[in-house]
Amino acid sequence: MRAVTQSASPAFILALSCVNQPGIVAAVATHIFNSGGNILEASQFDDLSSGRFFMRVVFNFVDQAPSLDAVRGGFALLISRFGMEISLRERGVKQNVMLLASKFDHCLADVLYRWRTGELTMNIAGIVANHPRETYAHLNLDGLPFHYLPVTADTKAEQEAKLLGLIERSNTDLVVLARYMQVLSNDLSAKLAGRCINIHHSFLPGFKGARPYHAAHARGVKLIGATAHYVTADLDEGPIIEQDVERITHADSPEDLIRKGRDIERRVLARAIAAHLEGRVIISGARTIVFRD
Amino acid sequence: MRAVTQSASPAFILALSCVNQPGIVAAVATHIFNSGGNILEASQFDDLSSGRFFMRVVFNFVDQAPSLDAVRGGFALLISRFGMEISLRERGVKQNVMLLASKFDHCLADVLYRWRTGELTMNIAGIVANHPRETYAHLNLDGLPFHYLPVTADTKAEQEAKLLGLIERSNTDLVVLARYMQVLSNDLSAKLAGRCINIHHSFLPGFKGARPYHAAHARGVKLIGATAHYVTADLDEGPIIEQDVERITHADSPEDLIRKGRDIERRVLARAIAAHLEGRVIISGARTIVFRD
Amino acid sequence: MRAVTQSASPAFILALSCVNQPGIVAAVATHIFNSGGNILEASQFDDLSSGRFFMRVVFNFVDQAPSLDAVRGGFALLISRFGMEISLRERGVKQNVMLLASKFDHCLADVLYRWRTGELTMNIAGIVANHPRETYAHLNLDGLPFHYLPVTADTKAEQEAKLLGLIERSNTDLVVLARYMQVLSNDLSAKLAGRCINIHHSFLPGFKGARPYHAAHARGVKLIGATAHYVTADLDEGPIIEQDVERITHADSPEDLIRKGRDIERRVLARAIAAHLEGRVIISGARTIVFRD
Amino acid sequence: MRAVTQSASPAFILALSCVNQPGIVAAVATHIFNSGGNILEASQFDDLSSGRFFMRVVFNFVDQAPSLDAVRGGFALLISRFGMEISLRERGVKQNVMLLASKFDHCLADVLYRWRTGELTMNIAGIVANHPRETYAHLNLDGLPFHYLPVTADTKAEQEAKLLGLIERSNTDLVVLARYMQVLSNDLSAKLAGRCINIHHSFLPGFKGARPYHAAHARGVKLIGATAHYVTADLDEGPIIEQDVERITHADSPEDLIRKGRDIERRVLARAIAAHLEGRVIISGARTIVFRD
Repeated sequence: MRAVTQSASPAFILALSCVNQPGIVAAVATHIFNSGGNILEASQFDDLSSGRFFMRVVFNFVDQAPSLDAVRGGFALLISRFGMEISLRERGVKQNVMLLASKFDHCLADVLYRWRTGELTMNIAGIVANHPRETYAHLNLDGLPFHYLPVTADTKAEQEAKLLGLIERSNTDLVVLARYMQVLSNDLSAKLAGRCINIHHSFLPGFKGARPYHAAHARGVKLIGATAHYVTADLDEGPIIEQDVERITHADSPEDLIRKGRDIERRVLARAIAAHLEGRVIISGARTIVFRD
Repeated sequence: MRAVTQSASPAFILALSCVNQPGIVAAVATHIFNSGGNILEASQFDDLSSGRFFMRVVFNFVDQAPSLDAVRGGFALLISRFGMEISLRERGVKQNVMLLASKFDHCLADVLYRWRTGELTMNIAGIVANHPRETYAHLNLDGLPFHYLPVTADTKAEQEAKLLGLIERSNTDLVVLARYMQVLSNDLSAKLAGRCINIHHSFLPGFKGARPYHAAHARGVKLIGATAHYVTADLDEGPIIEQDVERITHADSPEDLIRKGRDIERRVLARAIAAHLEGRVIISGARTIVFRD
Repeated sequence: MRAVTQSASPAFILALSCVNQPGIVAAVATHIFNSGGNILEASQFDDLSSGRFFMRVVFNFVDQAPSLDAVRGGFALLISRFGMEISLRERGVKQNVMLLASKFDHCLADVLYRWRTGELTMNIAGIVANHPRETYAHLNLDGLPFHYLPVTADTKAEQEAKLLGLIERSNTDLVVLARYMQVLSNDLSAKLAGRCINIHHSFLPGFKGARPYHAAHARGVKLIGATAHYVTADLDEGPIIEQDVERITHADSPEDLIRKGRDIERRVLARAIAAHLEGRVIISGARTIVFRD
Repeated sequence: MRAVTQSASPAFILALSCVNQPGIVAAVATHIFNSGGNILEASQFDDLSSGRFFMRVVFNFVDQAPSLDAVRGGFALLISRFGMEISLRERGVKQNVMLLASKFDHCLADVLYRWRTGELTMNIAGIVANHPRETYAHLNLDGLPFHYLPVTADTKAEQEAKLLGLIERSNTDLVVLARYMQVLSNDLSAKLAGRCINIHHSFLPGFKGARPYHAAHARGVKLIGATAHYVTADLDEGPIIEQDVERITHADSPEDLIRKGRDIERRVLARAIAAHLEGRVIISGARTIVFRD
């Protein structure tokens, strides 16, 4: 969300995809123009490997804006003609974000800070943790709904049901696993498809299993990184939104790697959340299209 | 999206700018569609700080393509209606690039290698150096016109006239100062405005004057970099196309900085040339708009 | 190599510099060994440009450790023989750090978070701000001495005197200007030489004066960065400890640059503080030697 | 600190490792000093995870230097006392490097260029390729022994025998697989242990098998990288010397990834070769200690 001047007229974010074919840009742009709209930002991507076309358009109205439903309705003919999948929303309407955390709270703390400074424009729908509230005593959680949902093998199904209830009752648009150390069930992952972001460490080469920073140390890697991705049934394998790395040396202990990894994780997660909230991410099979700001 | 499949129908690259106003994207896209064209890539930028709109469109034709002149003529009404500045060319037609070099030939060698591998798609219109051809004996210059134009204070005007003659007779589209250690006159810089790229070292903070790597060493900077920019009368101050940096330490001698700087310079220059050749760069006053691939 | 196993015996950090000459490493290592010590880490740098030698040694004692004064006394002969400047301290003894902040508190918030997680091992001697405490209501300042010292042209000398009093009474070892928007007087800068760290934005090329992010935007730079350095009379020109950059584009507004700059500033400042606290930084004229972990 | 002034007295590079114990640095430094030597550079690393100590020392002699054998002999007592493994050589004596290449010659071209400019100080012992010499017609191979050794499943053992013969007869110190697309046999890998460097692409997460850039594209990674490592029986899994990455986007086709990968591969390989030639790399099990310049 590139710091546009706040006009009286609200802006809308349209993201669409369809089979590539001539005339899509012309049709979308002409429809917006003929509806009294003005394009503020537009990005397209013509994916030669899949034959699909992706577009993100931000537009407002020269005169008074129609309602969201009216705007959506206006696209019905285009959707039908091109076989489009679209998402449309008002840019100024904040989305509801549920944060899930475990013991390590560096990502939670960072997301809350960026939310308070206005860098991440959203509502916090609540915080769900498998540790009690006093674990986070040094964080300012004032006014934020906090839910303590400890998970064991026996209670997992039950707690996931509670979690899903919280997500539904709070009209949560996006779930963020802010170093939430529980694997979501396949069922819950499927229910949250495309609206649940996870962050995890990444290495070249990759390491599976427990204590990955120790494995990376034992292997003597020279770079460590983090990946933010949408959650699918395979926890660490959903469509990637953002990645970054930092250089390390032989002198970094596993504890140093964990510490440096925290910095990477929190900035990669923040970038992924921002991109999602601004409607910059379109999922395409195992990949994402991320229209950068 | 460089590596498109080579269709029978040639593609055209259109870059345009004008005062921002509603309907531009619709008008351009509709015109292309109605002319039988198909948009392959499109990028827009609505510059809130200047009030100008920038757009790059790559398109081809479903049936046989018109000539370049015919395509250009087709945009006449749009140009007039929106007050557009445009550039239009066929993507498949290689541009002529003249390389200017001095004693340090790491950028020259790198550009030639990338040209031979097909990474930089262009014709080499010639190499102009203020050192004789044997200086470059270790480089493969087979079949490339080589012009030895030594420059002294007394001969500068004369040699620049010869250089300009070479540029004109060879239909050079782009001049690349590949670590060419001569300052072009204001007059020549003006004649080459927007089609002459220079590469130089960059630091935080900046250093003026001779032996900048020594100055950077004395100042103890922790990063060194390079900047590629269009040449203007003020040699190091034209619109920036690309920049990059590398991390250094106190243990790097000035000679180490020069060596590391060579790597940064050559990759920054190569990226800038590629962006220019692909029509991704639009100059806007002191800035550039660079639509990324 | 931060994460050493905590042995019963405390470790000492010695940093020294002197004119380079044969036998220094042998003399230092032999003295430590003969005193019953064991070298845990050692780094040297032989600065060919200045002819000076720099060394950092971390060592402990196989049996019970002598007092800091006794250890220091033991080096007296070496100091005299080689003309060394040394600093020596116990690694386990936390240093007192005073944080100075203004309205923008992203660096303050980040330093406090890293202190709470144990990543920055130090005591917070206090927070001094030229804005009242309620400015920081969203931060957890529990138990931290907070001093509101607003500064105007008229009160600057008086407030600096109070500040110096706070620094002295709290036995502050290090002052951190965490985006403190006041220029310290030459007099105070001199008094805090080598123990006051500032953070500021950096660009290629550099920009002086007000609203630097707006200047960088107008100039179309492709990278923005930050520099942490020791404060000298010339505010932005002291010996550099750490720098970093991020890539930006034409689409980033000045506000985007400010937002992205915050991330760079806070991580560069944190790295500089950590390096200082661990005795990794030795000032050498206008430069620093930073022995990396 | 590569660029030392060339003194009349030759310098020696000592790399050693042994079980960590008190007194090593003192013993080594004192021995050098008592032998009339002067330490120019020294780096140590005390590996808490393995309990081993690593040290690299560069030293010369105040008066005339002894022979290499005499210098080595002088360390005999220390080697015995501490159970050291050492390597010792004269810095000024160039090592012999054999380059192995296949069809893609970007790494070969880059290594040759850096050799010609003096950035990589070494002798080229020869070039071995499984493609005929005319494949590299655009490269300047003047005066370099070229060996065409095509490999098929049937001829592999025979050709490896020839290759080993070339390596032995040319007194090759280091073999560089400059994108050599043949897997060395376990037997040959074992014979070249610690003196054969390979370069390959790397991703987060990793990909095994053919066409890795296509796999990375299908998976939508946002970073691609390269890893240089010592060859072991497991081709892509030997001790890592150097790694680097670059950012990519959804718009990069597999061909773009391959092109960008070339740039990363060649700079990572060049850094790894330089580090090896300067004696900065010590192998420790599955890891390397790389003392940086």
